[in-house]
Amino acid sequence: MSTNLAEAAVPGTPDPELIDDLVAANRILSDHGVLDAYGHVSARDRTSPQHYWISRSMPPAQVTAADIIACDLDNKPLRAGETRLFFERVIHGEIYKARPDVMAVVHNHSPGLIPFCNSDTRLRPMVGNAAFLGEGAPVFDIRTIDDEGDLNICTVAQAQGLARALGSQWLVLLRGHGAVAVGNSIRQMVRHAIIAETNARYQLQAALLGPIHFLTDSEIAFARRSQPKDPDRAWRLWKERAMRKS
Amino acid sequence: MSTNLAEAAVPGTPDPELIDDLVAANRILSDHGVLDAYGHVSARDRTSPQHYWISRSMPPAQVTAADIIACDLDNKPLRAGETRLFFERVIHGEIYKARPDVMAVVHNHSPGLIPFCNSDTRLRPMVGNAAFLGEGAPVFDIRTIDDEGDLNICTVAQAQGLARALGSQWLVLLRGHGAVAVGNSIRQMVRHAIIAETNARYQLQAALLGPIHFLTDSEIAFARRSQPKDPDRAWRLWKERAMRKS
Amino acid sequence: MSTNLAEAAVPGTPDPELIDDLVAANRILSDHGVLDAYGHVSARDRTSPQHYWISRSMPPAQVTAADIIACDLDNKPLRAGETRLFFERVIHGEIYKARPDVMAVVHNHSPGLIPFCNSDTRLRPMVGNAAFLGEGAPVFDIRTIDDEGDLNICTVAQAQGLARALGSQWLVLLRGHGAVAVGNSIRQMVRHAIIAETNARYQLQAALLGPIHFLTDSEIAFARRSQPKDPDRAWRLWKERAMRKS
Amino acid sequence: MSTNLAEAAVPGTPDPELIDDLVAANRILSDHGVLDAYGHVSARDRTSPQHYWISRSMPPAQVTAADIIACDLDNKPLRAGETRLFFERVIHGEIYKARPDVMAVVHNHSPGLIPFCNSDTRLRPMVGNAAFLGEGAPVFDIRTIDDEGDLNICTVAQAQGLARALGSQWLVLLRGHGAVAVGNSIRQMVRHAIIAETNARYQLQAALLGPIHFLTDSEIAFARRSQPKDPDRAWRLWKERAMRKS
Repeated sequence: MSTNLAEAAVPGTPDPELIDDLVAANRILSDHGVLDAYGHVSARDRTSPQHYWISRSMPPAQVTAADIIACDLDNKPLRAGETRLFFERVIHGEIYKARPDVMAVVHNHSPGLIPFCNSDTRLRPMVGNAAFLGEGAPVFDIRTIDDEGDLNICTVAQAQGLARALGSQWLVLLRGHGAVAVGNSIRQMVRHAIIAETNARYQLQAALLGPIHFLTDSEIAFARRSQPKDPDRAWRLWKERAMRKS
Repeated sequence: MSTNLAEAAVPGTPDPELIDDLVAANRILSDHGVLDAYGHVSARDRTSPQHYWISRSMPPAQVTAADIIACDLDNKPLRAGETRLFFERVIHGEIYKARPDVMAVVHNHSPGLIPFCNSDTRLRPMVGNAAFLGEGAPVFDIRTIDDEGDLNICTVAQAQGLARALGSQWLVLLRGHGAVAVGNSIRQMVRHAIIAETNARYQLQAALLGPIHFLTDSEIAFARRSQPKDPDRAWRLWKERAMRKS
Repeated sequence: MSTNLAEAAVPGTPDPELIDDLVAANRILSDHGVLDAYGHVSARDRTSPQHYWISRSMPPAQVTAADIIACDLDNKPLRAGETRLFFERVIHGEIYKARPDVMAVVHNHSPGLIPFCNSDTRLRPMVGNAAFLGEGAPVFDIRTIDDEGDLNICTVAQAQGLARALGSQWLVLLRGHGAVAVGNSIRQMVRHAIIAETNARYQLQAALLGPIHFLTDSEIAFARRSQPKDPDRAWRLWKERAMRKS
Repeated sequence: MSTNLAEAAVPGTPDPELIDDLVAANRILSDHGVLDAYGHVSARDRTSPQHYWISRSMPPAQVTAADIIACDLDNKPLRAGETRLFFERVIHGEIYKARPDVMAVVHNHSPGLIPFCNSDTRLRPMVGNAAFLGEGAPVFDIRTIDDEGDLNICTVAQAQGLARALGSQWLVLLRGHGAVAVGNSIRQMVRHAIIAETNARYQLQAALLGPIHFLTDSEIAFARRSQPKDPDRAWRLWKERAMRKS
């Protein structure tokens, strides 16, 4: 039923603000090296929560507004005949189903995160704006679902397992693969993805100096109940830089 | 009283040289990656020591002369109606109060310094021009003041604690946060901030090779009583490169 | 006899698609820092397997279609009078002789690989698309052939030793020197060379965090019997970026 | 006597080829990050060995042919009234006196070399073209001469000590300071400086993987008695890139 409502509402109303932010997210994350040729970014429709917007299968660095299409939460394109689709878009649908608070999702192969994907050392917050990492980013091992494939998330069962590993967090690492970051908005998701990457570099370097003082439980708890100050300042700078290059 | 004098002198006389150097400092430190979207730079007025100049709240990479405003040492803008102000500008006022010799202040999240912020390993001078680091940069832990916030320096008590941790040094690290560098001029402050960042990278790399031979006490003492040779040579090169990009 | 056939077929028919991909490979690998001034890239002729195409001796970043010449598998140029030839082109001929499945070869000094060239630690796959590294890239030590030279591969005996060390793999490291990556197409060879470089960086960083979970045997075996999904997406992005810079 | 001859020959004959290479050396080494605002490069006059050419005191990235002046081996400018001179130019004169085979000298603060300047771990050759590092680059400690200064080489005694530490090698590291690379030509000196920097990064990374297999004594000895193959290929690429940026 909500699907019917959504199908009525979405196709005619691509929210220009959301599309603009989604294009910017693709460019910003590419410009930061957080997205390579194969990552993908989506945003849940703000009036029709059973749908999300995502680019056709292409390098995120090259995405324009004309490349954005709508899918339902079973990852079926709303418009018939769409064929250039990301194989792994099932990640997006299953996370939106499992997490009603999530409005944006990115799957990437963020280079600083890969070492933590394949390690027992947890990625933990080094600085205040990384408090969203909490007690440490969970790592999803696809072998907990099946052990027959190429490590890509291609089935509903795999994506559901990934969503379970994510739980109520904002970042989950994928063993031998990459990461998924989510946010309550496109801009928050972009912050999470960029901050996770820089935090990983800080933690790796700090490990060379000896024991690391991570954020305290109290600091993590504070961040969970408060808002960041002026988060759009970074967004505007990042966007200006990313769009200038293209 | 001195405030009255200052209020009379400052508003009409934004020193063009100081403003030009302050804009250049914003650009140079951004160009070096020492400033991200959230750092801020200030300079004490040269004729009215109870006032300082700082940009409105914005990414330092985008600062122009028109964005610079004057504040008193209680961080109140001289001109009524200024609303786009840095939350953490209290850092600047309290340091200028505590350190009459300081003429410029930067607060940043310099990436090479973060590992040292969260470590018991002290940042120590690897090369002659880093002698200002002395026996090692102090680390300010905001929990020595209170443990209720998001690690940002938002209150006078926190900023006073930070100024005490800085003491008579030129750089203080902030656990889980970043750093504050100061100088007896804008250009010296910029040197301190850039050299601290590169010194951190050198020290981190050297730690991989085994025990490190830091500057000796005698070398640190010599640097304290002498002047660097031709410091403006680097300033001119840095400025030329930073301004060309904008 | 096959040489006669080939000599008849090749000189008049430089396959424009192959030449275009070979120029792009030179540029892409230079743009990624995988090729410096001294590496070289070749592709086997698709209709005349006893010949390969390679640029004249020059920095790969500057190669254009006009610089590409044909050689037989004894590394003799087809056209008389060619003098600007790579000293180490013997690598290409001997690998094409030993590996009929190989259609493209690059010899480089990929910076991330050098540490593994001089170590007993094997380069092993961190992520799915690096599964081609298998149980670990072999290291060729030129001293197993002779110990009289400058580590360059200049003789048939040295190149045959290198081809033996490569065996049925896609990458071989050369102690104190660099690497050779091969592929069943130019584009696959480029992928191998770029992924090897990034995988090396991931592995090095992960080593700082503790024991590393590499791909499992089952995951490596799966990759061996399957095709990558949409490999040309990265190729197009890389090519667009590399050609724009020149 | 030779000085008289030289004074007669030099002032009127700035060798255009040498000047062109010297300007390019300044730009190339800046472009590689091997020279910062404070390094300096010189070349011995090819017909008058008692003189050398060097830029006025300025950032090497900005040097043009008009900035190059001649000095005698006591570092006195040939033309009266030159005042913008490098404080540390005594390095050049003393090395040219001690090493008749040396035709070019660079003093830099090459970032990858600093960790080795302050360590007991020796910089040793990882790859064939770094064989000039021999059994390991010597480290000059200025305290072996005196312990009263800022680590800069300002006196003849200090520069003579540095030249003794260099001995018959091509690179000497300066504790807490940087490096001096020399060559039998400008181009060889540039190669030495760039290769030393990259070799340092390779060695640092390899140290993370375990014991390192450096070049063997036999390989080092071979390199000492042979010539590199086509060294100008890198020079041309480096020059083209460096000059395009300015």
